[in-house]
Amino acid sequence: MPAILGQSVFDGGLEFPAMVVHRDALQHNVATMAAFVRDHGMELAPHAKTHMSPEIAAMQLAAGAWGLTAATPRQAEAARGFGARRILVANQVVDPAGLTWAAHELEADPAFEFLSFADSVAGVDILAAHAGSRPFRVLVELGHEGGRAGCRTLDGLMRVAAHAQGTPGVELAGVAGYEGGLRTAEEVRKYLDSLREAVEYVRVRNPILTVGGSQWFDVIGRELVATQARILLRSGAYVTHDDGYYRERTPFNRIDGELRPALEVWAHVLSVPEPGLAIVGMGKRDAPYDEGLPIPRRGGVTIMKMQDQHTVVRATGLKPGDLLAFGISHPCTAFDKWRSLPLVDRDYRVVGTIRTDF
Amino acid sequence: MPAILGQSVFDGGLEFPAMVVHRDALQHNVATMAAFVRDHGMELAPHAKTHMSPEIAAMQLAAGAWGLTAATPRQAEAARGFGARRILVANQVVDPAGLTWAAHELEADPAFEFLSFADSVAGVDILAAHAGSRPFRVLVELGHEGGRAGCRTLDGLMRVAAHAQGTPGVELAGVAGYEGGLRTAEEVRKYLDSLREAVEYVRVRNPILTVGGSQWFDVIGRELVATQARILLRSGAYVTHDDGYYRERTPFNRIDGELRPALEVWAHVLSVPEPGLAIVGMGKRDAPYDEGLPIPRRGGVTIMKMQDQHTVVRATGLKPGDLLAFGISHPCTAFDKWRSLPLVDRDYRVVGTIRTDF
Repeated sequence: MPAILGQSVFDGGLEFPAMVVHRDALQHNVATMAAFVRDHGMELAPHAKTHMSPEIAAMQLAAGAWGLTAATPRQAEAARGFGARRILVANQVVDPAGLTWAAHELEADPAFEFLSFADSVAGVDILAAHAGSRPFRVLVELGHEGGRAGCRTLDGLMRVAAHAQGTPGVELAGVAGYEGGLRTAEEVRKYLDSLREAVEYVRVRNPILTVGGSQWFDVIGRELVATQARILLRSGAYVTHDDGYYRERTPFNRIDGELRPALEVWAHVLSVPEPGLAIVGMGKRDAPYDEGLPIPRRGGVTIMKMQDQHTVVRATGLKPGDLLAFGISHPCTAFDKWRSLPLVDRDYRVVGTIRTDF
Repeated sequence: MPAILGQSVFDGGLEFPAMVVHRDALQHNVATMAAFVRDHGMELAPHAKTHMSPEIAAMQLAAGAWGLTAATPRQAEAARGFGARRILVANQVVDPAGLTWAAHELEADPAFEFLSFADSVAGVDILAAHAGSRPFRVLVELGHEGGRAGCRTLDGLMRVAAHAQGTPGVELAGVAGYEGGLRTAEEVRKYLDSLREAVEYVRVRNPILTVGGSQWFDVIGRELVATQARILLRSGAYVTHDDGYYRERTPFNRIDGELRPALEVWAHVLSVPEPGLAIVGMGKRDAPYDEGLPIPRRGGVTIMKMQDQHTVVRATGLKPGDLLAFGISHPCTAFDKWRSLPLVDRDYRVVGTIRTDF
């Protein structure tokens, strides 16, 4: 049974396990990052992959986001449905069906902006082969050794840029990078230098420079402040933050400000088969487990393992039917486990629904 | 864009990544397990948690399944929508909203059978507190040391059984166990012995004895053949099988017969940023990664790591736009990543849709 608007999630109508979204934290995070990019002369293209939620996307767009970032054409289509007039696919896009959709959408709506990455001549040619009357705008992607995609050298990048500039159906719009895999502020600074250099080299009018921005937006804010490019931050996880992975890595551990964890899973103790051992009705189906296990809110509870539908914990004083709360680690693998989540106020009263469209 | 009936999934309409279900393998597996339980005098209550799909549930029920197993009341409600007249929740159920639903459903339909586990006096009392005009039928659960839920001793089990028999609103129906965590056939045999003993002790008319049955149905078939109980196997993963975890563990590695992998993920090579390194557009959002990574169908492709939306592979001879196929490991964390999957024939023509309801 779904949660009932105006009632507490503990009033008996809602089935557990359930993941709830705290409205105050969500609103705080949306406002905090909107202010951060504004104060640093940047713009936010929040990564919609994190939540894929029309309600959260609407909050981000209402707070002034440039548009939305997506990881796949499928997500771009959904983001378009969320009301985004500008969409950035943060990959080289090679999917014929996805590109056909994007070309149609560009033709149907002159105000629609669609951007994607390219890191190869082959990638530019695939775009060109699917272009309609409006060209596909691309950002040439500069990677780094040990990184994910992206040209490994500035020379390589310039070859792709030149090819894009000479290819009908494709228009060079700037440079893309991803600093999320780097380990130190010094590595990030060096990489941002090379991105800035790339922007100067490609010489397009009103260039865009996009970077990731979840773990290093402080360094990005300082280093890119004087760059003559429109800086698009693609942070996604900030919107709900977490009690694990991002709690440890947020730049707000180094600068003033904070993000607040907005996601919480509630589940029943199903069984206490041995003294000190409890089986909780929350599993891999309900909460993320890939970048840290859930974080029990109650002291003295230690997670031993998670199974498909159960979590085995060590704890004393629990009995069947007790409800336990857990913070989560890694929002990007939290939302995709749920089709709808109750949005709650401080008293756990349901004030809305957060739907997802994965 | 969804797949188009009658067309190949490679004909341009479908966006990738996509997970497809092979109809032949699915039908083969449904028929194989239906025959196995019939030949061994057992019955199948397939665990719907694996797929949560109305189409697959309908195939299992049409092949003679006793009913469906679920892990949560939420899943039980969905399974009811799939057409199951008998539902077994393979846990102690303590969720008030879920029990309220079950009590209503039992009252509304005299033909509906609802069974769940109990391993404690507290669990029996929670059931009783929510019972309507028809009692909740329970199976007392016998666990084992190092296992999940379930009474740890026969004495403990008998106390719960006696309490169930003396509690209005609850009716004792038999015994439940789960052998999936045991490591050797000898351990399984000993555990099955104790379950058989428990069935004799509880002395109910037409007792039910339910066990897991994915990894040890050969031993179960041999050991429980002469038991005077209705044996319900709760195997779930058999229905699609896999190319990893269950491929290594299926009892058909020891006895005649086979299951066939029915799930396959197809994804594009998005980028080849360095010679020998490729970024594939398939991530943790698309394929399971908890009990082994996806299994490349093409030789010479080695997965280095999976990220939210990408898989980094070592391979030569790949270029952006190439499509790669992967088998999967662990079907229970495969279906939950998709809301609809194309059902395909041997030529990858779309012959239907497998929906999921997680």
